[in-house]
Amino acid sequence: MLADRGFGGLTLRAVAAEMGASTGLLTHYFPNKRALVAHALEVLDRRTAARPRPAAESTAPAGGLPMLRAVLLDVLPLDAAGAADNRIWVGSWGAALADDGLAGEHAGRYRRSRERMAELAAEAQRLGELPPGRAPEDVAAAAQSFVLGLVVQALFAPEEFPAERQIALLDGYLAGVAAG
Amino acid sequence: MLADRGFGGLTLRAVAAEMGASTGLLTHYFPNKRALVAHALEVLDRRTAARPRPAAESTAPAGGLPMLRAVLLDVLPLDAAGAADNRIWVGSWGAALADDGLAGEHAGRYRRSRERMAELAAEAQRLGELPPGRAPEDVAAAAQSFVLGLVVQALFAPEEFPAERQIALLDGYLAGVAAG
Repeated sequence: MLADRGFGGLTLRAVAAEMGASTGLLTHYFPNKRALVAHALEVLDRRTAARPRPAAESTAPAGGLPMLRAVLLDVLPLDAAGAADNRIWVGSWGAALADDGLAGEHAGRYRRSRERMAELAAEAQRLGELPPGRAPEDVAAAAQSFVLGLVVQALFAPEEFPAERQIALLDGYLAGVAAG
Repeated sequence: MLADRGFGGLTLRAVAAEMGASTGLLTHYFPNKRALVAHALEVLDRRTAARPRPAAESTAPAGGLPMLRAVLLDVLPLDAAGAADNRIWVGSWGAALADDGLAGEHAGRYRRSRERMAELAAEAQRLGELPPGRAPEDVAAAAQSFVLGLVVQALFAPEEFPAERQIALLDGYLAGVAAG
């Protein structure tokens, strides 16, 4: 429902109707919309982590830079499922910016993601795949910026950003990072 | 109200109360929330274009790359006003993804922005500020991706992304683009 109707279209009543349950039953578990949204994002987070994605189907990448590339590719809306998930994430940002609790959960997710990418960037520097001298935390923050913004543009203009172009743009970005 | 409460907190009734007007008067001009939101985004668009921003206060940049940098800097939440505006933009994405009309307006805005950046990238290539051989449209799409994603991260983690760091990350990004 979040992917289709957005956060504005999500009501406890509509979710209960979709489940064939009473609103009372639903509110027994989720006292308000905020609790339901927070749970939905947690479920999505786990599902995203568990689901095999195109990037993961190929040979497992070795090294810091190939692994960093795989992590970044995994964020992008390269197929219909990735687009649906990203519509939920992008759609959740507005609600989160108006709710300190949700904002904190989002901030934590993105921080953990940056920390993981920073480890990969540091490994890439040790392996000589990326030039030394730049803080791995900055490499990670920059890379995460790039893919999050690419997600937004691809969602609004899918015909201008087919999967091949998203991948080419990411590879062009990483080439610039490697060139220092 | 959008910056403070988000799209979920915006109702015609609340806006009318804030104005000291009746809901009936407001609905005379804006029959529904969607019309009010579309108008608010148009006003914000014009206000953003007209307002002097920190990047514009320094000497007017010459050349394609310095101007591209100024345009990109202008997107970032480098001060409180820029953060408030960006909260509205980011907050509007979810509503827009669930509304074809709003989505089309957003897609048009970002397309026009990319077109302007592509002209600057082409000029930077002609002037030798950026290496030739890469499509200016790709340089523009990549640069816009970078700043939009940086906006999102800076809004969720403002203490980790003070203005100086945002600027340093953007300059690091542009150095990579210039290095090819």
